[in-house]
Amino acid sequence: MHEMLSRIESAHQLHDMSLEQLQKLADEIRDVLCNLMATRTAHFASNLGVVELCLALHSVYDFRTDRLIWDTGHQIYPHKLITGRYHEFATIRTRGGLMGYPNPTESDYDLFMTGHAGCSVSTALGLKSGDDLMNRKASKSVAVIGDGAFPSGIVFEALNNAGELNADMLVVLNDNKMSICPRVGSVARYLDRLRTNPFYTGLKNEVVKMLNRVPLFGDPAERMLAQLKEGVKAGLCGGMLFEELGFRYIGPIDGHDLGILRKYLNLVKDLKGPVLLHVVTEKGHGYQPAAADPVFFHTPPAFEDDNGRPKVVSGGGSPAYTNYARDAIRDCMRANERVTVMTAAMCQGNKLEPVRDEFPERFFDVGICESHAVAFAAGHAKTGLRPIVAIYSTFLQRSYDQIFQEVCLQNLPVVFMMDRAGLTGPDGPTHHGTYDIAYMRVFPNMVVMAPGDAKEVKSMLDFALQHPGPVGIRYPKSNAPILDKPNDPIQLGKAEVVRWGTDGSLIAFGGMLETCMQAADRLASEGMDVTVVNARFAKPLDVEVIGKCFQQGRFVITIEEGCRMGGFGSAVLEAACEHGWDTRMMRSLGLPDRFVEHGEREELMADLGLDANGIIRACRELEQRMNAEQMAR
Amino acid sequence: MHEMLSRIESAHQLHDMSLEQLQKLADEIRDVLCNLMATRTAHFASNLGVVELCLALHSVYDFRTDRLIWDTGHQIYPHKLITGRYHEFATIRTRGGLMGYPNPTESDYDLFMTGHAGCSVSTALGLKSGDDLMNRKASKSVAVIGDGAFPSGIVFEALNNAGELNADMLVVLNDNKMSICPRVGSVARYLDRLRTNPFYTGLKNEVVKMLNRVPLFGDPAERMLAQLKEGVKAGLCGGMLFEELGFRYIGPIDGHDLGILRKYLNLVKDLKGPVLLHVVTEKGHGYQPAAADPVFFHTPPAFEDDNGRPKVVSGGGSPAYTNYARDAIRDCMRANERVTVMTAAMCQGNKLEPVRDEFPERFFDVGICESHAVAFAAGHAKTGLRPIVAIYSTFLQRSYDQIFQEVCLQNLPVVFMMDRAGLTGPDGPTHHGTYDIAYMRVFPNMVVMAPGDAKEVKSMLDFALQHPGPVGIRYPKSNAPILDKPNDPIQLGKAEVVRWGTDGSLIAFGGMLETCMQAADRLASEGMDVTVVNARFAKPLDVEVIGKCFQQGRFVITIEEGCRMGGFGSAVLEAACEHGWDTRMMRSLGLPDRFVEHGEREELMADLGLDANGIIRACRELEQRMNAEQMAR
Repeated sequence: MHEMLSRIESAHQLHDMSLEQLQKLADEIRDVLCNLMATRTAHFASNLGVVELCLALHSVYDFRTDRLIWDTGHQIYPHKLITGRYHEFATIRTRGGLMGYPNPTESDYDLFMTGHAGCSVSTALGLKSGDDLMNRKASKSVAVIGDGAFPSGIVFEALNNAGELNADMLVVLNDNKMSICPRVGSVARYLDRLRTNPFYTGLKNEVVKMLNRVPLFGDPAERMLAQLKEGVKAGLCGGMLFEELGFRYIGPIDGHDLGILRKYLNLVKDLKGPVLLHVVTEKGHGYQPAAADPVFFHTPPAFEDDNGRPKVVSGGGSPAYTNYARDAIRDCMRANERVTVMTAAMCQGNKLEPVRDEFPERFFDVGICESHAVAFAAGHAKTGLRPIVAIYSTFLQRSYDQIFQEVCLQNLPVVFMMDRAGLTGPDGPTHHGTYDIAYMRVFPNMVVMAPGDAKEVKSMLDFALQHPGPVGIRYPKSNAPILDKPNDPIQLGKAEVVRWGTDGSLIAFGGMLETCMQAADRLASEGMDVTVVNARFAKPLDVEVIGKCFQQGRFVITIEEGCRMGGFGSAVLEAACEHGWDTRMMRSLGLPDRFVEHGEREELMADLGLDANGIIRACRELEQRMNAEQMAR
Repeated sequence: MHEMLSRIESAHQLHDMSLEQLQKLADEIRDVLCNLMATRTAHFASNLGVVELCLALHSVYDFRTDRLIWDTGHQIYPHKLITGRYHEFATIRTRGGLMGYPNPTESDYDLFMTGHAGCSVSTALGLKSGDDLMNRKASKSVAVIGDGAFPSGIVFEALNNAGELNADMLVVLNDNKMSICPRVGSVARYLDRLRTNPFYTGLKNEVVKMLNRVPLFGDPAERMLAQLKEGVKAGLCGGMLFEELGFRYIGPIDGHDLGILRKYLNLVKDLKGPVLLHVVTEKGHGYQPAAADPVFFHTPPAFEDDNGRPKVVSGGGSPAYTNYARDAIRDCMRANERVTVMTAAMCQGNKLEPVRDEFPERFFDVGICESHAVAFAAGHAKTGLRPIVAIYSTFLQRSYDQIFQEVCLQNLPVVFMMDRAGLTGPDGPTHHGTYDIAYMRVFPNMVVMAPGDAKEVKSMLDFALQHPGPVGIRYPKSNAPILDKPNDPIQLGKAEVVRWGTDGSLIAFGGMLETCMQAADRLASEGMDVTVVNARFAKPLDVEVIGKCFQQGRFVITIEEGCRMGGFGSAVLEAACEHGWDTRMMRSLGLPDRFVEHGEREELMADLGLDANGIIRACRELEQRMNAEQMAR
């Protein structure tokens, strides 16, 4: 079916292809993408946008020895298709199959496993510098970065360093005018201006040539002329922002014209010093519905083409925690005009568009700039506002130091809504929200909570917004149940006891409560009567309720969807040590000390023993151990 | 003695002062700084450099309602002197005295307690945005940031957002051509170019006026003219980097001319939209030796003026861990040409100048850009090099997400030399290296070590440089002893037993070993015989040796100079839980769940029970508890 693709084993085969052949290859790649992507949630529009750029890069460079980093990595699909993975491509984002991001274990053409934005320029610069020191100076280094990721602080740090080192590297700015949502910030406006620049006018070359003929001497009038000359060049050429940072700026050029792309890549390949090539692409190019609605088509769910419009193949189920969080945020903003919201380009992922539209003055999308988002929120809090920072657990890692210095050290009331805390499924290890409990609870002044069911999302946010210090609320990427439980009001450091039992205790933190209740029900039907606690707080802990569980003298199991090391279970261990509770019959269930692969969340959770079966198994093992020890006495 | 200073109770008194009075005030401030700073280690040159800027700001703005953020905060002394703290100033950086950084509990004029660089633009923008929403639109917002901090990624993120919001705020770029060490990067070169720009030439104004008269219509030739016009303006005015980001650029102006400073501050005060004022100052201005050697005078130790040259009043004592680390790095670079070093502007703090000078090609100072430093190092590691990232524990927090994604997820062999891990003394809570054990050990693939004495610094670095994955080595800001102990070779996950005892165990991680040995000696003389273990590894733990300590059935105490929550003690608790060891007679000593104030390290350690007395006390308490329980049986 895909005559050319099916015969490509390695990307260097592209070197011998004509423009026409490359064009045909592009068509085949788009065919694969459009057919497959409709069947599952996957990054769609961004991959359609880089087909020609990917082919041009691989046909000009030889990335068996040259270095290529796709920033963030969600636009890696065309690259995977031409680097020996066409035949496995149907497995993408499924358990045991190809990852939806670069993966060095799949191919030597993938150098770094990524998923967080903005690091490509740093790693590509490190690779170039390293290759030079290792006497591979001929090797080229290329970073491809979207305009959405471009304003991330680390990019600026890397440009600053690349200019200093005067490294022979290429940064391709893939400008599609989009982050995931429409992009924001003054860099975006700057790119808009650049894009209207008449790069090809013969006019320009003529004027520059003329100016170059003006002689320059030491006299003031002539220095004035020299400035005029540089100024005119700047006005004509654009790209001063990059030029000032020591990069040679070239562009903008059409990112869907293979001939133009190859021409310019060949041109810049052997230039000395850092070069920024500005390539304009269209997100969703070649599939009209995606080009028309690139926000929906960033990572659309499975859909059918209904006369050129996507019709979502519904997944069903109850609303997700994300929906409840959005509604809670909206309700709080309606009730309290001091509430503001910060997002880092995740307006869509967090389903916050209605909030943005209803409260544009109090809604701040700062772009993919998590560090700034948190420090900016601290400024808001200092003025008396009640900022909510809504960022995925994994991306909030970018703000670690600002959470420490700007928020916790000042004890400012900033609320962190940490979505996708736990396993995120098909995105894999870069997107799992694994570490937030461990890193948040360690900071003084921080309160760390997790709702046990849908209803608690709103009540926890209400609680957080009247608490006089920082609060983190974490919730998983899953549907949110409404559980049959006491619904005690939220109080600082107070757990909710769902049921007392006599044979042992399950202490659930957050979304694991439902699973624990299911396990307890099944155990009850088998004659084992266990306590179920909805911990609610990882910090401060409810030492009264948790103490009672230990004092029963039976087993205690903590269950969390976060890393076991340093997490909620460790907090319980620390409390036990402090209070002299016996931990020999305690066990903590959670994420292991390894990177968890991609796959459906439920599959992964079951594998890790974080389903009802796993919990029951742990209860039975502890019961047996207790019985054995009693026998031995 | 300081006639004016002694009568200033609040900075708004400066509003009524004449230029002459302000100049006299500046002289008095310099007198205070020069006299006091010679008596102790303190930030010196940077404070001398901002005297006039500080006075001009406070005389033009009213920071009782306007907002002022000094980036990083080490240049806050003149500000403290004129905001009601002159009479307490002699207490600065001493326990219970004034902090060397901004401190909101000292004065309402200090808004954020800071110490890490680069966040001022974000918080000042947040304050302005918050004040607007809180209907205090007349309030002004000012961030003062040095050129050393300026390339930090978060600054770029904040500029990007400020341009978007078109916020009425002022960023004062305090350009003294220095980070702590001579600054690096292309932004620095750019500022060098700007500084030579003839801002005051009447020429410029004339040409701009003329160009403004050129009419602009739709015709291509005229569009060309329009571009010419903008280009000429750019060439004349400079500051395009900032202008492109939506800031109005003004400068450079002389930062030691009070009249000029006031004129320009008055000019920009009521401008709409974001403004960047480029102020050129001299680090150490007004004290010739400091101006001549601003690197030494960044934070000089106590010194005497010896005919215009500083003579250090020697502190004595054995060499610090920092020295041993520097020597170890140098030796490893001599032995292995694949070893490279990254520093983030801390060449001086880490005493790495001799390494930089001996191996300029393999030494990379990236400026205050910790995020980039780590991702860049990952690139090096991928090419086969063995990069060492030498960053203070507290500043490495900026790289949290890069340690996760670029290093641990790829399992790349990057070695982190975490200096100042633990209490740093007079710098206070922003500089204490509190969290590194807790955050490093949680990442899969990471090995976390700490040398027990001076000799182990080199042997641990040797070990780390042949280990096939990431390693963190932490060591305190203290002198490094050479201890009388077995000196076992370093093996992955193996502790060293210094002595076996029968009455209980002390398990020390890192620099606390010496204190534990002292405590054990004193206990031995009192008839208590305790085991002393040099843990060496927080990850992976030596479960064999630690298990033996528990299996003795006596008490176990872990001791670390890091946060107790999630730290080494928690790692031991996790292991105990997994192996079924009884933790009821265990106790973990370490840093508490609150921010530890500034003061001499030894004072603070003693207060926190982290000296020999504290350890002995803990042993006695546990012994009594054990005896009481045995009696009760």
